[in-house]
Amino acid sequence: LVGNSQFSFAFTDLSDYVFLSLEIRAQLVEQQKCLEQQTEMRVQLLQDLQDFFRKKSEIEMEYSRNLEKLAERFMAKTRSTKDHQQYKKDQNLLSPVNCWYLLLNQVRRESKDHATLSDIYLNNVIMRFMQISEDSTRMFKKSKEISFQLHEDLMKVLNELYTVMKTYHMYHAESISAECKLKEAEKQEEKQIGRSGDPVFHIRLEERHQRRSSVKKIEKMKEKRQAKYSENKLKSIKARNEYLLTLEATNASVFKYYIHDLSDLIDCCDLGYHASLNRALRTYLSAEYNLETSRHEGLDIIENAVDSLEPRSDKQRFMEMYPTAFCPPMKFEFQSHMGDEVCQVTAQQPVQAELMLRYQQLQSRLATLKIENEEVR
Amino acid sequence: LVGNSQFSFAFTDLSDYVFLSLEIRAQLVEQQKCLEQQTEMRVQLLQDLQDFFRKKSEIEMEYSRNLEKLAERFMAKTRSTKDHQQYKKDQNLLSPVNCWYLLLNQVRRESKDHATLSDIYLNNVIMRFMQISEDSTRMFKKSKEISFQLHEDLMKVLNELYTVMKTYHMYHAESISAECKLKEAEKQEEKQIGRSGDPVFHIRLEERHQRRSSVKKIEKMKEKRQAKYSENKLKSIKARNEYLLTLEATNASVFKYYIHDLSDLIDCCDLGYHASLNRALRTYLSAEYNLETSRHEGLDIIENAVDSLEPRSDKQRFMEMYPTAFCPPMKFEFQSHMGDEVCQVTAQQPVQAELMLRYQQLQSRLATLKIENEEVR
Repeated sequence: LVGNSQFSFAFTDLSDYVFLSLEIRAQLVEQQKCLEQQTEMRVQLLQDLQDFFRKKSEIEMEYSRNLEKLAERFMAKTRSTKDHQQYKKDQNLLSPVNCWYLLLNQVRRESKDHATLSDIYLNNVIMRFMQISEDSTRMFKKSKEISFQLHEDLMKVLNELYTVMKTYHMYHAESISAECKLKEAEKQEEKQIGRSGDPVFHIRLEERHQRRSSVKKIEKMKEKRQAKYSENKLKSIKARNEYLLTLEATNASVFKYYIHDLSDLIDCCDLGYHASLNRALRTYLSAEYNLETSRHEGLDIIENAVDSLEPRSDKQRFMEMYPTAFCPPMKFEFQSHMGDEVCQVTAQQPVQAELMLRYQQLQSRLATLKIENEEVR
Repeated sequence: LVGNSQFSFAFTDLSDYVFLSLEIRAQLVEQQKCLEQQTEMRVQLLQDLQDFFRKKSEIEMEYSRNLEKLAERFMAKTRSTKDHQQYKKDQNLLSPVNCWYLLLNQVRRESKDHATLSDIYLNNVIMRFMQISEDSTRMFKKSKEISFQLHEDLMKVLNELYTVMKTYHMYHAESISAECKLKEAEKQEEKQIGRSGDPVFHIRLEERHQRRSSVKKIEKMKEKRQAKYSENKLKSIKARNEYLLTLEATNASVFKYYIHDLSDLIDCCDLGYHASLNRALRTYLSAEYNLETSRHEGLDIIENAVDSLEPRSDKQRFMEMYPTAFCPPMKFEFQSHMGDEVCQVTAQQPVQAELMLRYQQLQSRLATLKIENEEVR
């Protein structure tokens, strides 16, 4: 019953330790699960990124092919035209045709750029994500090994604490027990001494002799118990010291694990993850920015051509294209009739008067036309 | 024979006129053909542009749909994840997950932008080209009407020149003929006068009377021919004046047509063509530049997120996500055994000596470890 009660007390005393150490064990398992889950999520994310870029690469390639087909279709059509042959000859195009050619060039450029994008996705970006995924898994495994070791060490420390605490409790219990026994012996001795205070004459010699040997026995027992108690007391103090020191060490270990090691474990899992992801995404961004720059250059070229849409120079070019149609003819020359040597208007009387009249009529007609023309404007 | 020879001369005299006017007629036809061909080429170019943008619109729409599908596929997948629920709750994501969401947003943005582009091609750019094509055809028809009128006027002028030239040649021929006849009469008169210088006595009275009446007749004829010649001479001069004036007028008309009217005809065909084409292509360019700006904005957002890829804050977030796993446990407290009131290390002799020894051992062990650690570094 006493043993049972002692155990019951011990259990109560240990409950704090048990609760805490169970909690720590549970946390260590939980931490491992969290890191594993984090890695799984990363691997999943990296898988999604790979799938995403693989699919986007396909889309870009299809887009590129469609644009190429579009450009090719119209290029083939224009290659046979007179314009194009003119273009090949002197690179001098009518401004709208120039715009049209640049539009086709732009589509071809877009086609090429999107093909490049598709290629970079497939052969660079995806490869990087694949590598990061492998690295993440590898780093997690490494961190798992390390954390296994750390957890084992921590468990050792906790077990050690349990052991020294148990030892302390045991020695302290023994010390208490020895103290009790010593006190009992002291009580017996007191009782014996009290009894020996009775008047001696009443006691028989034989009895007196018996009492003396009994006192001696009790004294001997007390001494023995005193020695036992001192020994147990010392053991108990040492055990308590050991327990107190181990307690400090344990708390320090636990603190170190939670504040430093755990952080290092997470860092171990993270090692290179963000930097590699950064590089992979920068590769993607750089490809996209390059496409944008190229596209912008092409658009600027078209914009220049659109700014140069100009009827005057086109008219010039148009007329130069058909010189026989637009070249002004020679002047009509005076065709004198059979030896007529006069080739100027002659204006002796009466012709002069007629011409003057006609001149005046023409002038007045011209004036009327001018006024009419002004009114129309 | 004389008439025939005269005709032959006239033909030679006319050949320059004939050659030139035939050439002009041919040029006018050619010019009309050129303008028609130019319009056909424009209509063809505008048809090509419409076909091109219709096809490109389809390509952009397909590209947009593919991107939308891609974004939707991964959005749907992520919507169900813990991350996303976390995101909805506090908008606080792990930095790589944030990048991933922004990538999906970017694809969705690209999808939307390319759909807009497709729509602008179809409902704005193509419509403009269609309108320009109709306008070109209409303006060509208008210019054809005007050029028909101008050509008719020019032909009238050329015919007029032919007529006055013919008239001049005719009157000049008549004048020459009258002059010949006059000279013939004068010769006869001279002959008659010479014959009347013969000794009169040799001539019979009857004969003398006959001669006098003959001289009178010749004089009368000469006067008549003189009058005829003067009349024809005047007609010829007037006709030549008319011819010379018409010649000038014709050359001026031809010059005016080739230098001004023809240019105006081409301008009439061109009216609004370049400006409308400019506006249509600017609509295209503006749509493309808008897409570029939007794309660039999206990329910049991703770039910011990539710059913010940061292990430290992610570690913090990760540990906050699982507070039960990473929260440091309570300290282990000293569990005193049954009324043991001492809860500190006690160090009376002989325990003190032991503790001192242990302390020294620990210190030396620590020093060794420190040295080893330095060496490892």
